[in-house]
Amino acid sequence: MSDHHASSPSANQLDSKAQGWSALFTEPMSDLVKRYTSSVFFDQRLWQADIAGSRAHAQMLHSVGILSAQDEADIQHGLSQITQEIEAGQFEWKLDLEDVHLNIEARLTQLIGDAGKRLHTGRSRNDQVATDVRLWLRGEIDGIIGLLRQVQTALVDVAEQNVEVILPGFTHLQVAQPVSFAHHLLAYVEMFGRDVQRMQDVRRRTNVLPLGSAALAGTSYPLDRAQVARILGMVDAQGEPQICQNSLDAVSDRDFAIEFAAAAALVMVHVSRLSEELIVWMSQNFAFIRIADRFTTGSSIMPQKKNPDVPELARGKSGRVIGHLMGLITLMKGQPLAYNKDNQEDKEPLFDTVDTLRDTLRIFAEMIGGQPNAQTGQKEGGITVHAEAMQQAALRGYATATDLADYLVKKGLPFRDAHETVAHAVRIAIEQGVDLSELALADLQKFNPAIEADVFEVLSLHGSLHARNTLGGTAPAQVRAQIARHRAALA
Amino acid sequence: MSDHHASSPSANQLDSKAQGWSALFTEPMSDLVKRYTSSVFFDQRLWQADIAGSRAHAQMLHSVGILSAQDEADIQHGLSQITQEIEAGQFEWKLDLEDVHLNIEARLTQLIGDAGKRLHTGRSRNDQVATDVRLWLRGEIDGIIGLLRQVQTALVDVAEQNVEVILPGFTHLQVAQPVSFAHHLLAYVEMFGRDVQRMQDVRRRTNVLPLGSAALAGTSYPLDRAQVARILGMVDAQGEPQICQNSLDAVSDRDFAIEFAAAAALVMVHVSRLSEELIVWMSQNFAFIRIADRFTTGSSIMPQKKNPDVPELARGKSGRVIGHLMGLITLMKGQPLAYNKDNQEDKEPLFDTVDTLRDTLRIFAEMIGGQPNAQTGQKEGGITVHAEAMQQAALRGYATATDLADYLVKKGLPFRDAHETVAHAVRIAIEQGVDLSELALADLQKFNPAIEADVFEVLSLHGSLHARNTLGGTAPAQVRAQIARHRAALA
Amino acid sequence: MSDHHASSPSANQLDSKAQGWSALFTEPMSDLVKRYTSSVFFDQRLWQADIAGSRAHAQMLHSVGILSAQDEADIQHGLSQITQEIEAGQFEWKLDLEDVHLNIEARLTQLIGDAGKRLHTGRSRNDQVATDVRLWLRGEIDGIIGLLRQVQTALVDVAEQNVEVILPGFTHLQVAQPVSFAHHLLAYVEMFGRDVQRMQDVRRRTNVLPLGSAALAGTSYPLDRAQVARILGMVDAQGEPQICQNSLDAVSDRDFAIEFAAAAALVMVHVSRLSEELIVWMSQNFAFIRIADRFTTGSSIMPQKKNPDVPELARGKSGRVIGHLMGLITLMKGQPLAYNKDNQEDKEPLFDTVDTLRDTLRIFAEMIGGQPNAQTGQKEGGITVHAEAMQQAALRGYATATDLADYLVKKGLPFRDAHETVAHAVRIAIEQGVDLSELALADLQKFNPAIEADVFEVLSLHGSLHARNTLGGTAPAQVRAQIARHRAALA
Amino acid sequence: MSDHHASSPSANQLDSKAQGWSALFTEPMSDLVKRYTSSVFFDQRLWQADIAGSRAHAQMLHSVGILSAQDEADIQHGLSQITQEIEAGQFEWKLDLEDVHLNIEARLTQLIGDAGKRLHTGRSRNDQVATDVRLWLRGEIDGIIGLLRQVQTALVDVAEQNVEVILPGFTHLQVAQPVSFAHHLLAYVEMFGRDVQRMQDVRRRTNVLPLGSAALAGTSYPLDRAQVARILGMVDAQGEPQICQNSLDAVSDRDFAIEFAAAAALVMVHVSRLSEELIVWMSQNFAFIRIADRFTTGSSIMPQKKNPDVPELARGKSGRVIGHLMGLITLMKGQPLAYNKDNQEDKEPLFDTVDTLRDTLRIFAEMIGGQPNAQTGQKEGGITVHAEAMQQAALRGYATATDLADYLVKKGLPFRDAHETVAHAVRIAIEQGVDLSELALADLQKFNPAIEADVFEVLSLHGSLHARNTLGGTAPAQVRAQIARHRAALA
Repeated sequence: MSDHHASSPSANQLDSKAQGWSALFTEPMSDLVKRYTSSVFFDQRLWQADIAGSRAHAQMLHSVGILSAQDEADIQHGLSQITQEIEAGQFEWKLDLEDVHLNIEARLTQLIGDAGKRLHTGRSRNDQVATDVRLWLRGEIDGIIGLLRQVQTALVDVAEQNVEVILPGFTHLQVAQPVSFAHHLLAYVEMFGRDVQRMQDVRRRTNVLPLGSAALAGTSYPLDRAQVARILGMVDAQGEPQICQNSLDAVSDRDFAIEFAAAAALVMVHVSRLSEELIVWMSQNFAFIRIADRFTTGSSIMPQKKNPDVPELARGKSGRVIGHLMGLITLMKGQPLAYNKDNQEDKEPLFDTVDTLRDTLRIFAEMIGGQPNAQTGQKEGGITVHAEAMQQAALRGYATATDLADYLVKKGLPFRDAHETVAHAVRIAIEQGVDLSELALADLQKFNPAIEADVFEVLSLHGSLHARNTLGGTAPAQVRAQIARHRAALA
Repeated sequence: MSDHHASSPSANQLDSKAQGWSALFTEPMSDLVKRYTSSVFFDQRLWQADIAGSRAHAQMLHSVGILSAQDEADIQHGLSQITQEIEAGQFEWKLDLEDVHLNIEARLTQLIGDAGKRLHTGRSRNDQVATDVRLWLRGEIDGIIGLLRQVQTALVDVAEQNVEVILPGFTHLQVAQPVSFAHHLLAYVEMFGRDVQRMQDVRRRTNVLPLGSAALAGTSYPLDRAQVARILGMVDAQGEPQICQNSLDAVSDRDFAIEFAAAAALVMVHVSRLSEELIVWMSQNFAFIRIADRFTTGSSIMPQKKNPDVPELARGKSGRVIGHLMGLITLMKGQPLAYNKDNQEDKEPLFDTVDTLRDTLRIFAEMIGGQPNAQTGQKEGGITVHAEAMQQAALRGYATATDLADYLVKKGLPFRDAHETVAHAVRIAIEQGVDLSELALADLQKFNPAIEADVFEVLSLHGSLHARNTLGGTAPAQVRAQIARHRAALA
Repeated sequence: MSDHHASSPSANQLDSKAQGWSALFTEPMSDLVKRYTSSVFFDQRLWQADIAGSRAHAQMLHSVGILSAQDEADIQHGLSQITQEIEAGQFEWKLDLEDVHLNIEARLTQLIGDAGKRLHTGRSRNDQVATDVRLWLRGEIDGIIGLLRQVQTALVDVAEQNVEVILPGFTHLQVAQPVSFAHHLLAYVEMFGRDVQRMQDVRRRTNVLPLGSAALAGTSYPLDRAQVARILGMVDAQGEPQICQNSLDAVSDRDFAIEFAAAAALVMVHVSRLSEELIVWMSQNFAFIRIADRFTTGSSIMPQKKNPDVPELARGKSGRVIGHLMGLITLMKGQPLAYNKDNQEDKEPLFDTVDTLRDTLRIFAEMIGGQPNAQTGQKEGGITVHAEAMQQAALRGYATATDLADYLVKKGLPFRDAHETVAHAVRIAIEQGVDLSELALADLQKFNPAIEADVFEVLSLHGSLHARNTLGGTAPAQVRAQIARHRAALA
Repeated sequence: MSDHHASSPSANQLDSKAQGWSALFTEPMSDLVKRYTSSVFFDQRLWQADIAGSRAHAQMLHSVGILSAQDEADIQHGLSQITQEIEAGQFEWKLDLEDVHLNIEARLTQLIGDAGKRLHTGRSRNDQVATDVRLWLRGEIDGIIGLLRQVQTALVDVAEQNVEVILPGFTHLQVAQPVSFAHHLLAYVEMFGRDVQRMQDVRRRTNVLPLGSAALAGTSYPLDRAQVARILGMVDAQGEPQICQNSLDAVSDRDFAIEFAAAAALVMVHVSRLSEELIVWMSQNFAFIRIADRFTTGSSIMPQKKNPDVPELARGKSGRVIGHLMGLITLMKGQPLAYNKDNQEDKEPLFDTVDTLRDTLRIFAEMIGGQPNAQTGQKEGGITVHAEAMQQAALRGYATATDLADYLVKKGLPFRDAHETVAHAVRIAIEQGVDLSELALADLQKFNPAIEADVFEVLSLHGSLHARNTLGGTAPAQVRAQIARHRAALA
C-alpha cells in the first residue's frame, strides 16, 4: 500500500490510466476496447464548454471555501493556458485519456500539480459531460436560430420582388388556383418561423444545470449550484438560475438531445419540401426558376447537364437527420437509471445533426437570396424567376374554375350546385381546347343564365389573385402585409 | 332557401358521389379505390371537432352577411340533430361519402336542404380537415397533460412513503451509491414534468386556425377569421386569436402532428425506462417491489408464474409510438406544396399514438399509486416496497466508497489521490469478503493515517444518504423539499 | 365427446380466468388491464393458423402415444366445429379469454371436455403463438409474391405497347438522354423482381417450426417435432423438416417479422418512387400520362380537379410501413431472453403491413395494367400514354449531347475532350435557341472539323435510342429481349 | 505514356474543375458548395474498388477493340502506380476533384496523358460509383460473415464448458424453468447464424454488375459486360455472370444498401439483447458472470466501480445502426428515376454501419471467448461463469413447478387441471417459505393423492433439466448434440 504524502502530479491516477483504472483492476484495458470506448476523437469539440464549466466550478468551490484562493488562481491560470494550447493546435489529445474531460484535467494537473487534482471535488464525469453537452448545444441552437432567420430573410427578399408574379398553385401537383410566387415563398417563411420557435423551446429545456449532481446522488460538499448556473448563463428570462432538481435525472436525462433532434428533423423536412419544389421547378418541363451555376454541377458523361445538386443533396440529408433522431430515441428506450455507457452514443448523432443543419441553412440562405456584391452591397446571384413560364403554366389547368363557382354563388346558387355547374363548363372547355376565359359569354350563359360580362374579370389570373383578399390569402395586398410583418419580426 | 331549378345537371353533388366526382369524371370510382382512399371509418372520430368548426364557420358567415339568419339557424339546428344522431349511435356512416366531412355535410343537406349546401362557402376540405385535426388534438393534449399529472401524483404519493428507504443507486447497473427510493421515483416526476411542458408547447402551436385558407389560396369571401378563432377558443394566453398567416402553409402543414408524436415518443421513452426498472426490480434476484396481482398475468404452462405484463407491454408500446413518429416524418419528407393526399395518412398514427398514451398513462397511474378505496377514499393497491431487500442490495457493492474518498479529501488529500487510496481499501475488503464499514479502524488507517473513528458514520448507508444534502441530492431533507415543490405544482 | 368427472380443484381454469390466473392470484385482473393486455380483438385473425397448429399437435401427440385415439378424434372433431362457427360468424370472441389461443381452447373444452384440456400437453402459448404467426405470415407472403407478379405483369403489358415511345430520361430531374418508355417501366419490373426474391428469402426463414419448444426450455414429453413440421408444410425444397433448434430462441425470436417488415418497406419504397413519377407525369406541365378516372378524385371546392389520389396515398403509405419496421426493431432492442410480453406488440404492425401491401399492390396492378373487359377478356383502363408529349419533352434539354460526344470519340478524340467540345456546342445552341440537331453542319464543324453529315442521324432521338444497344441499354432490341425474359419468368 | 498535344478546346476538363464544370458554366462552384457536395473525404475508402473496376473496364475496352493495347497497358501501369501512391500515403486527395473517381482519373491522366482520358469511354460516374460501392460492400460482407462466425465460435466454446451449469431460464424476467447455461448461449448462436444467412442473401443481390449502364440509358459502345462481371468476380455459384439488366435501375438502385443496413440492424438487435443480459448478469444482485477487467472501466468519482462499458456501448450502438437504416430508407423514398444527388448520402451511413459491426463483433468474440495465450495457444480471458450463483437463483422462484404439473399429467390429469393443482401447491410453499422440493410428501399428496416418492426426482433442478430431452430442448444430451452440429458448421 502506497504512502502518498508526496502525492504529486506524477503519482497520478490519470497518468496511469493506460495501466488500469485503479488498484481494483488486474489488467490494463485492451487496445481494442480503448478505441471502442474512447470518445476523445469526437468529444474534443466540447472543449470550450468543458473549460467554461470547470472555470465556473472552481470559482464556486473557492467561494464556498472548498478551494483555496491560490488553488483557484492556479486552476484558472492553467485553464487559460490550455485554452491557448488548444486554439493554437498544440494540445496533444491522447486516446489513453479516453475523453475530453480527462485529457484536459490530466494536462491541468501536469501544469499546476495538486490544485488540478482538487478541481474534480464534488463533481463526476457524469454531471460534467451532461453540463458540457448542454452548454455546447445551447450555443449551437443560437447559431441555428440565426441561420434560420437568414433563410427567412432570403425568402422574404425574393418574395418582395415577386408579389405580382403568378404561378399555378398546386394541390396534388395538379393546377389548382393562381397564387402569388411571393405567397408561395412565404409559406416556407412560416415553416422556418415555427422552427425558430421550437428551437427556442428546446433551448429553454437545454439551458438547465446538471453540475452538482455528481455521479448520480448529489454530493456531500456544500456546493452553491445557483452560483454556477449564474456564471454559466443558465438562467431564465427573469434571471432565475435553472438547475436540474434531481441528481439521478440530471445525469441520465438526454431528453434535450432527442428534442433537439426532433426539431432539427422538422427543419430538414421543410428544407426537403422546398428542395423538392426547386428541383421540380428547374426541370425543363417547368422551367420556373434557375439557381446560380455555382450551386449546380455538371455530368462526367453528358456535356449539356446542369444539375441542382445542392437541393437534391439537402433533400437527401433529411434522411440523415431523421436517422439520427431515430438512433437517439432507440438509444434511450428501456435504459434503467442512472447513467449508462449507452449515453455516450448521444454525441456523434448530435454533432452531425448540428453540422448538417448549419451547412444546409447557410447554403440555402445564399442559394435563394444570393450574396452581397462586394462593391454595391446589393445581394446578387440568388434564384432567377421566370415569371412568364409560371404564368403560362397557370393558364393550363383551369385555375380559375373556383372563381367561376364563387361568382355563381354570389349570384345566388348554393356552393355545391355552383361547383357542379362549373364542372360542366370545364368539360366543354376541355373539349374545345380552350380556357374558361376563352369561352363565349353565350356559351357560359348556357350553364347558368345569371352569368354576365363581368365574369371575364373573375376568370382572369389577375382577377382571381386579387380576389383572395382575406387574412392569409394570396392577394397582393395580403402578401405585402405579411412581408411587412416578417420584416418587422426579422429586424 | 333559394330555389334553383335550372341550375343543375344533377340534383346534389354529394348524393351522386358514388357515380362520379363531378361532370368531369367519365366513370365511377372503383370499389377498390373507394376503400383504399376513404377515411370515414377512422376519421369519424373527428366528428365533434368537425361540427364545432362548422358551427363557428356558419355563425361567422352570417355575421359577415354571407349567410341569411334563417340559413344559419337551419344549419345550427341541423348540426344539433346530427350531434344527437351520432351520440345515439344512429348516424349512418357511408363509405361512399369518403370522409367525416362529406358524411356530415350530406346528412345536413338531407335534413335542411339548400342551406346545407351553402355551409361550404369559403372553405375547402383542405382547411376544414386541418382545423378538425387541430381542434381534436388540442383536446387530447389536455387529456394527456391531465394523465401525466396523475402519474406524477402517484409517484409523489409513493415517494412520500419511502423517503428514508434506501436502495442502491446504480450506474451501469452496478451498485454506485445509496439513494433514497423516493429520490429515485422523483427522477421520473422530473421526466414527466418535462413531458407536460413539451405538450404545452405543442398545444400552443396546434391551437392555431387554418380555416379561411380554403383549398390553398385563401378565398374571395370576406371572412372574419379572427371571429372563428375566438369562437373555437383558438386564442393565446392574452386572448389574441391565433390564425395561420399563410393559406398554402395552413393546408399543408403537419408540423404539429409530428411535434406531438415526438413529444409522445419521449413520454413513452420515459415509460419504457420506468418499466424496465419495475421489471428488473420484480425479478426474484432483486425482489425490490411487487405490483398488484391485477396488473400481472400467469402462464398457460408454468403454474408458479406472475408476470409483469403491464410494464412489459408498455415498454413494447414505446416501439409503436416511435414507429408512428418515423412514419409521420417520412410522410412529409419531400412533399411539394400545397395539400397532397399523402397527408391523409397523418390520422391513423396520430389516433393510435393518442390512444396508446392515454391507456398507458391511466394504467400506470393506478399501478403505481393504487386506486381509491370506495369506503375510506384512501388509495390502495399501488406498488409494494420491499425496503429490506433494497437495503441488503445496497450493502453489496461498496456503495459508500465515494464517501470514504470524500472523507479523505476533507482530511486534505486531493480528490484524485483519495480515489486511488480507496480503490486499494476496496480491494482488501473484497479479499476479506467484508464491507468497508466492517474493516477495522487500524486496517483503514494503513491506507491513510488520517482516518479516525468518525469514519464509520461516513461508511454507513444512513450516513452516506444524509450527507448528500445539496440541491437535487438524495438526502432526505432535499427529497422532502422536492416533494413539497411537486405537491405545490400539482395542486 | 368425453365426459370428465371430478377431475379437479377448480372446474376449469379457463372458465375462471376473469377471476384470476390461478390459485396464486389474490385478485382478478383489472378491467383496464384486461383491455390493455388482451390481444384477442386483433390476433383472432390468426385463427386458421391456430387451428392448423392444434390439429397437427394433436395428431402428433396421438402418434407418440400421449393422446388416446378417442381424445384425438374428439379434438379434431371439435376443431372442425369451431372452424365452422368462426367461418359462419357465430363464434363468440371473449375479451376475458385474452387471446385467440385461449378463446379457441376454452370453446374446445366446452365442446369436448377433458380431451380439450389435454391438447395443451407439451406446448405453451409461447411456442404456440410463434407457430401461428409464422404459419399465417407464410401464407401472406405467398399472397404478396403473387401480387408483386401481377404488378410486374401489368408493367410488362404496358411496356410492350410502348417500346418505341421515347421520353426524356432524367437524372436530377434534368433531361439526360432519350429512353424508351418501356425501358423506364422495366426498371420497376426489376425492383419488384428483387422484392419477390427478398420475400422468398424471408419465407424460407419464416417457415421453421417453433412448436415443441414449450414455454422456453423444451418439454419432457417425447414429441415428434419433425412430424409436426411435415404436417404443417414446414419443409425445405428437398422436403426436409425445418425446426427451430433452440427452444429459448424459438419462443423469443421475431427476426422473421422484422425481416418481413424490412422487405415490405422496400416494396413500398419502390411503390413510392413509381408514385412520385406518376404524379409528376400527370402534372399539367408534363402531361405524359393519364390514369383512369376511377383512380382519381375531385375537389370539394375546385370543380376542374382530377387528382391522382391513389399514387399519392400509396406514396404516403410508405411512411406507415417504414414506421412499422422501426417500431418492430425498437420493440426487440435490448430484450433479454426468453419470451417477454413486449413481443405481443409484433402483431398489429405486422398485420397492418400485410394489409397495406396487399391493398396497394392490388390497386397498382389494376391502375397500371387495367382490368379485363368482361366480354373481350382484354385488359382495359390502365394508364394512357401521351407519346407526343413525352417526345416533345425529350427534344428540350439537348438529350443527344452525349451522342455527339460519343461520335467525336469514334472520330478519335479522347472522351474527356469530346465532352468539353460538346459543351461548347450546347452553349451555342442555347444562345441560338435551337436543338443540336438544328445547328448547321458548318457550325458543328467549327467545334471539330471531323464532324460530317452522318452526325445528324446521331443527333436524332431515334438514332440515340437505337444506339444504346448493349445488354441492359434502352435500344428497342434490348428492351424487347428484356420483355421476353420477364414474360418467361412470369409465366 | 502518350503525348497528347492539341487535342482540345481546353487542355483538360478535370484540371479546370475548380473553374467550372464545362463551357456551359458561367461561374465556378462556390467553396461552400464544394465542401457541401464533395464526397472525396469519405468516399476515398472506395479506392481499391474504384481501381479494380477501372482495370476491368480497361481490359474489356481493349478486348472489344475500343482501347489500343498501348492505351490499356498505360492505364494498367498508371493504376498500379496510383495504388502504390495511395498505399504509401503519398496520394494527394483534392477537394476540388470532388470524389474518389475524379481524383484517381485526374491523377491517371496526369501520369499517362490521353489514354487516361479514354478510360471513361462508355461509362459514367453513375454506373461507376454503383459498381464501386457494390464491390466494396461485397468485401465487407465477407469480413462481417467471418466475424459473426468468430462470435459464434466463442459462444460455442463457452457453451461447451457449461453444459451442466444450471441457471434459471426467465420469461418476463421471472424465474421460469431451469436451463443449461450452454443452452442459453446457443440461442445466440442461432441468432447470429440467421444473421450469416441474411448477409449471404444480401451478398447475392449486391454482387451484380451495374457497369455498362453508363449515365442511365446504356451506351453506344459495344461493351462486353459479362467479361467485366467475370473479371470482378460478379458471378453466381455456377459461375454465371451477374449483370444489372436495366440501365435506369442499375444507376438508381440502392436496395442492396438498405437491405444490408436492415441485416446489420438485426445483428445489432441480437448484440443488444446479449448485452442486456450480460449487464443484468453482472449486476451484484445477479452476479452470474464476470467479464475480464480489460473490457470494463472504472469511475472518476466512485473508487469501487467496475462497469461493463463494452456491452453497454454495444447496446447503445444498436441505435446508431437502426438510425442509419432509417436514414437510408428515407433517402430513397419518393425519388424519381434515375440517379439523383440524394443518393450520395448512402455512403456515410453504410460506412459507419460496417465499421460499427466490425468493431463490435471483433470485441464481442474476444470478450466472450477470450484470446489465445501466446504460449499455450489456449484461449484465455473470456467470461467467467459463477455456476453457484446461477444455481442458487434457479432455486428461487419455483422453477420446477411445470415439472410437477407434467408429473401429474403422466398420472392421468388433464394438463389444465394439473396446472391449477400445482398453483395451489406453490401457494402453500410460498406461505411456508420453502421450495416445492422441500414440501413433505404427505403435504404434496394433499393436492393430489397420486403423487408418490418419485416426485422428488422431478422436482430437482437436475431432474428438470435432463427431462427436457426433445429436439431443441435444454437437456444436456440435446445441448451436446447442438454443439456438435455448430462445430461442424463452423469448421
